[in-house]
Amino acid sequence: MTVLDTIDLDFSAWVKIKQAHIENILNSLLPLETLAPQKLHSAMRYSALNGGKRVRALLSYAAAEFCNANENIADAAACAVELIHAYSLVHDDMPCMDDDDLRRGKPSCHKQYDDATALLVGDALQSLAFEVLSTKNLMVLPSNEKDLTSFYRHISANESHPQIQMLSILAKASGSLGMAGGQAIDLTSVGKPLKQAELENMHQLKTGALIQAAILMTSVTSTPEKIVALRAFADTIGLAFQVIDDILDVEADTETLGKTAGKDVNSNKPTYVTVLGLDAAKLHAQALHYKALKALQAYGSEALRLRELASFIMQRSY
Amino acid sequence: MTVLDTIDLDFSAWVKIKQAHIENILNSLLPLETLAPQKLHSAMRYSALNGGKRVRALLSYAAAEFCNANENIADAAACAVELIHAYSLVHDDMPCMDDDDLRRGKPSCHKQYDDATALLVGDALQSLAFEVLSTKNLMVLPSNEKDLTSFYRHISANESHPQIQMLSILAKASGSLGMAGGQAIDLTSVGKPLKQAELENMHQLKTGALIQAAILMTSVTSTPEKIVALRAFADTIGLAFQVIDDILDVEADTETLGKTAGKDVNSNKPTYVTVLGLDAAKLHAQALHYKALKALQAYGSEALRLRELASFIMQRSY
Repeated sequence: MTVLDTIDLDFSAWVKIKQAHIENILNSLLPLETLAPQKLHSAMRYSALNGGKRVRALLSYAAAEFCNANENIADAAACAVELIHAYSLVHDDMPCMDDDDLRRGKPSCHKQYDDATALLVGDALQSLAFEVLSTKNLMVLPSNEKDLTSFYRHISANESHPQIQMLSILAKASGSLGMAGGQAIDLTSVGKPLKQAELENMHQLKTGALIQAAILMTSVTSTPEKIVALRAFADTIGLAFQVIDDILDVEADTETLGKTAGKDVNSNKPTYVTVLGLDAAKLHAQALHYKALKALQAYGSEALRLRELASFIMQRSY
Repeated sequence: MTVLDTIDLDFSAWVKIKQAHIENILNSLLPLETLAPQKLHSAMRYSALNGGKRVRALLSYAAAEFCNANENIADAAACAVELIHAYSLVHDDMPCMDDDDLRRGKPSCHKQYDDATALLVGDALQSLAFEVLSTKNLMVLPSNEKDLTSFYRHISANESHPQIQMLSILAKASGSLGMAGGQAIDLTSVGKPLKQAELENMHQLKTGALIQAAILMTSVTSTPEKIVALRAFADTIGLAFQVIDDILDVEADTETLGKTAGKDVNSNKPTYVTVLGLDAAKLHAQALHYKALKALQAYGSEALRLRELASFIMQRSY
């Protein structure tokens, strides 16, 4: 499916197509539960194929359209980022972390299976994300020798193969200076009064880093100008996502959210709402939305899906 | 340091040099504990810089010498495999898994810190392993254009960049069809009578897969003949390692092992000793050792360190 096949679709149709597409890919990628170790594979599928919104995958696809990246790159980025996200949710829900029994309206992985399985599910989903990105033939190489040589000369000048750049982006975003680091700060900040800058730093790592990776992984073969624009877009939309999350934690009910509402406030975690107040948090989200759109203002229809996704993130109710 | 610098060293001197070298690299690679999140970084360093034998790193270096791989590849492989190993120990020791309070004679990570930190330490060490392998400039590229073109043409024929092959090898070895899968089988096999083939399959995944990866990652730029020999060596030495581990669990004491001796037998886990009996397990280890050496019989001094390591693994007492 190319951009041209989907350019005329309205946003909700595009979302449905992409959501079904990523679900299909993840479904065929995850080992079957008939394959040993069956319980682990069953739990991996339970955790990664549970009908999430796939916002990160959608961002990868939208950024791929913006960058005119090939389908393999878009699919690998979307898949890898959803696998990392799925692993992080499984580990976050465990008793020693957030201890949450509910995820997307169903028992969380350690409740449905057990703690040891949940631990291994997260570990194996993380490995699988990097396995997906190290698949053969992710790059569609030029077929004639002259273009191939020129392609590779470009790489050697840039010092890193684009596919390796994707791996590097995801690894950094997942590690102790990215998502895992954000979780660690989150753990130690319970009950502490955080300033807005500290809260922002925590979320930049905890949620923002992976959202940035989702967007930037597909940019590795793009132009420097587009990469700069995407970076600015990614930085702000990642934060906006978290601000909205904090607002929903207060305003939505458990059924709509599919996870325990009011959890953050009840567990004395600092959120944008507790730090800024509800009204100021909403204004802050709007300001970030505006900034995200501004990053793309030089671009036309190639940025359509990114703009639509920014609005979608702002307006989501779960 | 090239092979030529160390070829005249006796084995124990070579081991000391390589152990100090990998310790240095890991030390400079792991974020400082003064860098936020401090507790996570402190716990990562505690868990990854705790004076293990570095058998996997040594195997990477020995295989690199055998394949004449460049230093960057050897260091990255050694580092990445030790980080994956360190993460697996941290998670394995957690209460929901083996619940072991002792690791290399010191409190295990979750005892020294806490369960949530141990979970994140494992997660972040895994990400870091893949980050190391996606470092820029791992490959030393030919400097003149003709050789560069020929180098890349070789890659496009093989369909995957050598550095990406390394990433793929490690990702597969770590995931649900590798180490994490072996752990899952281990968990479900407690108290069950296993046949030797089932036990072998479990260990092939749990321990063997990562040892194979340690050896094979440095072979990505080598000849097909050497890769075949290395594969045969890696398959058998990985199993021999586990057989010896099971024998030590029975014969060594806790102080020498640095972890709780008799743990596997006491927790009713099937081991080579419980399945085969102690004497037959020792004979089995010797047969595997012989098979490993046979895989290298066509090679001379380039296979010296691999042969020495095979004997080292057979004779270790902890």
